[in-house]
Parts: sequence; C-alpha cells; structure tokens
Amino acid sequence: MYFDYTATTPIDNEVLDLYVTIQKKYYANTTSLHLLGQKANNIYEQMKKEIRNVLGINHELIFTSNATEANNLAILGVLENKVGKIITTEIEHPSVFNVYKELENRGYEVVYLKVNSEGIIDLNQLEEEMNNNVLLVSVMWVNNIIGSIQPIKDIIRIVSKYPKAKLHIDAVQGITKIKPDFKFEDIDLFTMSAHKFYGPKGIGVLAYKKNIDLKKRLFGSNSQNGIKPGTFDLALVACCAKALKKYNNNLDKHFDYVKRLNDYLIKEIKNDKIVFNSNENCSPYILNLSIPGINGETLVHTLEANDIYVSTGSSCSSKLAKPEKTIYAISKDESRARSVIRISLSYLTTIDEVKELVRVLNNL
Amino acid sequence: MYFDYTATTPIDNEVLDLYVTIQKKYYANTTSLHLLGQKANNIYEQMKKEIRNVLGINHELIFTSNATEANNLAILGVLENKVGKIITTEIEHPSVFNVYKELENRGYEVVYLKVNSEGIIDLNQLEEEMNNNVLLVSVMWVNNIIGSIQPIKDIIRIVSKYPKAKLHIDAVQGITKIKPDFKFEDIDLFTMSAHKFYGPKGIGVLAYKKNIDLKKRLFGSNSQNGIKPGTFDLALVACCAKALKKYNNNLDKHFDYVKRLNDYLIKEIKNDKIVFNSNENCSPYILNLSIPGINGETLVHTLEANDIYVSTGSSCSSKLAKPEKTIYAISKDESRARSVIRISLSYLTTIDEVKELVRVLNNL
Repeated sequence: MYFDYTATTPIDNEVLDLYVTIQKKYYANTTSLHLLGQKANNIYEQMKKEIRNVLGINHELIFTSNATEANNLAILGVLENKVGKIITTEIEHPSVFNVYKELENRGYEVVYLKVNSEGIIDLNQLEEEMNNNVLLVSVMWVNNIIGSIQPIKDIIRIVSKYPKAKLHIDAVQGITKIKPDFKFEDIDLFTMSAHKFYGPKGIGVLAYKKNIDLKKRLFGSNSQNGIKPGTFDLALVACCAKALKKYNNNLDKHFDYVKRLNDYLIKEIKNDKIVFNSNENCSPYILNLSIPGINGETLVHTLEANDIYVSTGSSCSSKLAKPEKTIYAISKDESRARSVIRISLSYLTTIDEVKELVRVLNNL
Repeated sequence: MYFDYTATTPIDNEVLDLYVTIQKKYYANTTSLHLLGQKANNIYEQMKKEIRNVLGINHELIFTSNATEANNLAILGVLENKVGKIITTEIEHPSVFNVYKELENRGYEVVYLKVNSEGIIDLNQLEEEMNNNVLLVSVMWVNNIIGSIQPIKDIIRIVSKYPKAKLHIDAVQGITKIKPDFKFEDIDLFTMSAHKFYGPKGIGVLAYKKNIDLKKRLFGSNSQNGIKPGTFDLALVACCAKALKKYNNNLDKHFDYVKRLNDYLIKEIKNDKIVFNSNENCSPYILNLSIPGINGETLVHTLEANDIYVSTGSSCSSKLAKPEKTIYAISKDESRARSVIRISLSYLTTIDEVKELVRVLNNL
C-alpha cells in the first residue's frame, strides 16, 4: 500500500506509451537541420504550446532534469551579478531553502518569512519586508510536508507593487492537484516536476516571463535559449506535456475523491498519541502526523511491516536525522518535529487501503 | 537513410524494455526510507557498480541530464574558488569550449592547444604549457566533428607529473566505439552520454576520482552526494548502465564492421569537388567532408532530398551559420569550414545505404 505519492508517482500508462512511441519514431536530435530533426523539433514546439495552453501562460519554458535544477536556475539565474535583498519562507523545499542559505553565505540580505501553526506566512510580514531593494521573493504554493497552501494571489498583489522584485513560485505540489486562486500568467517564474503528476522522472520545468533576463549557469550550445544547453529528451518533454494536460483535466474529479479519503482519515484516526500536523485547509493530498517520542524513521518501518509505505518528511532529505523543518516551524516542538510521518494520497488510493491504514494507525 | 548517429542514436529495444520495466516496477524514490525506496536504491547502487565494472574504475558517478551538464560540472566543479591556469584545445565540443571561453572572461589564464591538419594536438605544446599553476586540462578523446583521436595515454603521462592539475576528458564520442589506449581509472574526470550509445536521451554521466573535491553548483537535497541534488530517474540510470555494458561488449565487432563501411566510402567517393576532413586515423564512425563553395546547410538539404540525413558540424550548434570551428582549425580555410557535412555511421548502417550515399555524393 503506497502512501508516498508526494515523493513520486508511478508513471501513467498512456504517458509511458507515448515515451516508447517518441523514442521509436522521433529519435533525431531536435537541433539537427535535416527533416528528421525538424520533425522532432516541431513536436517539441507543439508540446511547449500545449503546456502553455494548459496553464494559460506565455512564459518561456526550460526543461531541466528535475525541479531542484529548475528552482536553482530560477533563483540563481535571476540574481546572477546582482546584489540586494531576497525573501523566502522558513518552510521551503531544500531546492529553494538551501539556495537561499547559500546566498546568505555569499552576502545577500535574506529574510525567511515565518509561518503560523497552520504553515501559512503572514502577509503583513511580507509587506513590511518589501522595498525597492528586493530582487526576488520565493514562496512555495503547496508545502510538500504538511500541504499548507499559501495565499499566492495576495502575494502576487504585494510583490507586483515593486517592479524590481521578481516572484518565484515552487508550484511542484500544486499543479494538477489544487485549483489556483491566481493566474500562472501573473507569476514571474514558477517550477513544476512531471513525476509528481504521473509523468516520468528526469524532467522538471522552469517557466519564466519573457521580459526576465535569466542568466545562464551552463555553457554550451544554443539549445533551450542557451540557458539549458545540450541535448534534451523530446520524449520526456512530450510525456510531461501529456501528463500535465491529462491530470489537469482531472483536477476537480481527483481532488473531490482524495478530499473524501482525507476527511475519512481525519475522522477515523482515533489514537491519542497522534498529533495532526496538517489541517482541513491543507492540500487533501497530504496528511502529516506525529507521535511525539517516537522517531519518524521508526514509524516508517513499523508501518512498512504492515505493508504500508509512507515517508518521513521530504524524501529529498529523508536520510537526515534532523528535526523536520516545516513541522518545527509550525510547532516549535522538537519532539514532534522528529516524529513525522507524511501520508500522501492519490486518485489511485483505494478506500480499502485507507481503512487498513486507519486500523494500523489506531493500533500504534 | 540516417547518417547522423554522432548527433544521437535510436534507443536499443532491450534498453527501452528495461526503461518500461523499471518505470512500472521500481517507481519509488530512491531516497525514500521505506522498502520500495530501498529496493529502488539497491538497483541504483548495482547499476553504478556495473558502470564501474565495465570501465574498470572506482570513480564517483554523477548522473546529469546530458553530457553538457556533466562537462560543465567537471570544469566548474573543479575550479570553483580557485585561480590559476587552465588548458584545453581549440576543437572541443561547445559544452567544454564555451565554458573555457566563459572562464577566460572571468579572468582565468586559458590556453587553447592547437591541432594539426589531422586534428591532433601537439604534445610538445602541452608539455611547454604545463606548470605548477595549472589547475585543469580538458581534452576530448574523440572529436565529434571529424573523429580525430587524441593521444590520451600520453596526455595522462604529461599531466600526471603536476599533482595540482586535474585531467578532464570528454569521452562522449569514444566510449563503446573506440578501444582506449589508456585506463579510464587514470583519468581524474571524464564524461559520457547514454544517447550516443543507443541508450536514452536525458542522461549524462560525470565520473570523477574520489580524491577530487568537486564543488556543488546546485543546492538542495543530499541526493547524488549533494552535488546533483533532487530526484533522478532510476530507469534512465539503469538504461545507461545496460546500454554501456551491451555496446562495450560489442565494441570490436561493431568497430570492424563500421571500419569496413568507412573504408568503402573513402575508396568509392570519387568527386573532385569533395575534400575529406577526416582521415584513416580518425574514428571510423565519422566521415567529414566539404565541398568548398557550397554551404553546409545547402548540402544537408540536397542530401535530404535523396532521403539521406547527415549533419553539418555538431548538431549542438547546427543552427549557427558560422564556419565550423574544428574544420577551420585543421584547414585554416573558411570556405571549407562553411561547407561541412558530417556523415556518421553505426552497426545499423547497411551496405546498401552506404552505396546509395556514394552514388548521391558522386553526382553532386
């Protein structure tokens, strides 16, 4: 019983079929001048158009190996050769948080916005911190640990008052899952990852507005505006576009189903030892729990013995024994932050799986 | 009739089958703590072991999105926070050459070794340029334009006299194609690309010795030593290992076959307008020609009208109208360097295809 869909999803069969088709039929390099290269390049352009259509954007799209590379490129590409103030939150994914930490070491003035007990930033703090010296604001849309959803529409309103400041949104856990209260077109830069929505691993996307002078960090050919040079895999791009379209079309249906599963879990988990780290305003795809006093890793293995696979915090940092950053931020409780399990759901999750999960959790 | 195997190869069917199998069976994130993550991680470790076994190395392996990223990481990862002299050649692939150009702009002392009319560097020049201030030497093993093969064994001997200097070899066009006269274990850093040997696009490899303090350029999780953080695709890694093993095992057999095709082409192409840019010491996988006075792109399209797909120079820079760098370096002839077609061969190339190519070329 896989409850780790936030870490990664299995690839959709139709998407996998497309991968095989593209590899067999359109293997030529998209940059080759000959007809086979041109045909591949036409598909590439068409796939970019599909992604833009699904999201309602005119942004440039850069395909990277994963969202980590895309987030790094967004932040470092905007800031290259600039000095100023940058703002993020204390609960970002390591692929954003650790870039800001690095930039702090390099001398940038960095502000980490606090979150409340529900994992939401304080818009007043953001407004107070904004000024004409701010170069970049990075806020994740949906938190990957507890599923808290930031007020992106308000953040856009606040940041857009300062023309020098660019807004970067890590949209990895939101896209195809949560209906945005904002327009993607209004965000300067945002990132996504195909393997979070039943696409293949090995591809992340950075979307950035055409007026942004994004500096390259890799040097080579002119491929992908010269910003991400070298050969990319057309099949991965096509699969990303296909998965995005398919799962965005199913957003409401899947949301409603998963919301019911999540409601059931919250209602039926009745174990006094368990503390809920997620709440009803969070993404229903994530339910985060602690059993203070019991180490997260121990909990993962206990559930595993019952054939239940969950995560402790982010899979990107699961091998670290540190208190979980987001849980500590919302609770200031180190014991709770060391005892974290993240249950994550999918339209593939069955009610029987959820019932079995409840049974096991209630007997812990 | 595809004669552009140097740009990219079609994926091997067995390799593609493995991709599908891994995506279906082992989709969990390798960094997840639970059993499914551990199983995926075990395969990852096993695949790295296979790659090391095939090449006879103990190096660390970093999987990137392509060889461009791997070459950038090799060079910039070694040089980060260091100042000194760096040496490369005038015929490197853009993913190396343009990094050195960037470093020249940043103030490094950069030497571009000259090549002779056969595209081979002068070892005496290398020896003269070496000193205790040299930090890095980057030389491609097999040139991607004409197929010239550098004397890597001698280069290793010369560079290894200077303990501070690291040797980086772009091995992209050599691996699985040319029998090395050196040991991979003796090279500090080298790169390869799976889609050049019938593996998938979307994966490059940097191999580097464990004693090298390679600096990270991306910030995020601890995945891949923290140097290439974030989720990678286990399927791509497994496919890379499988293709490497399979095609390295067939190296001699494929070499002999392709060598015969190449010999046939050199003997049978009888058109006074054609100048050969490759010679009999080059990799038999590449045969580069010019028809001075006729633009390379025009030649590509003329051949295309005969259902023959070749490249003009590197596909990575084929959309540029500049004289081809390597051809200019060996010939100092701008007309010849603007009229470049690269025919590249494979074990998949048939004798009938080669005969048809000869017929069309002889009638140009």
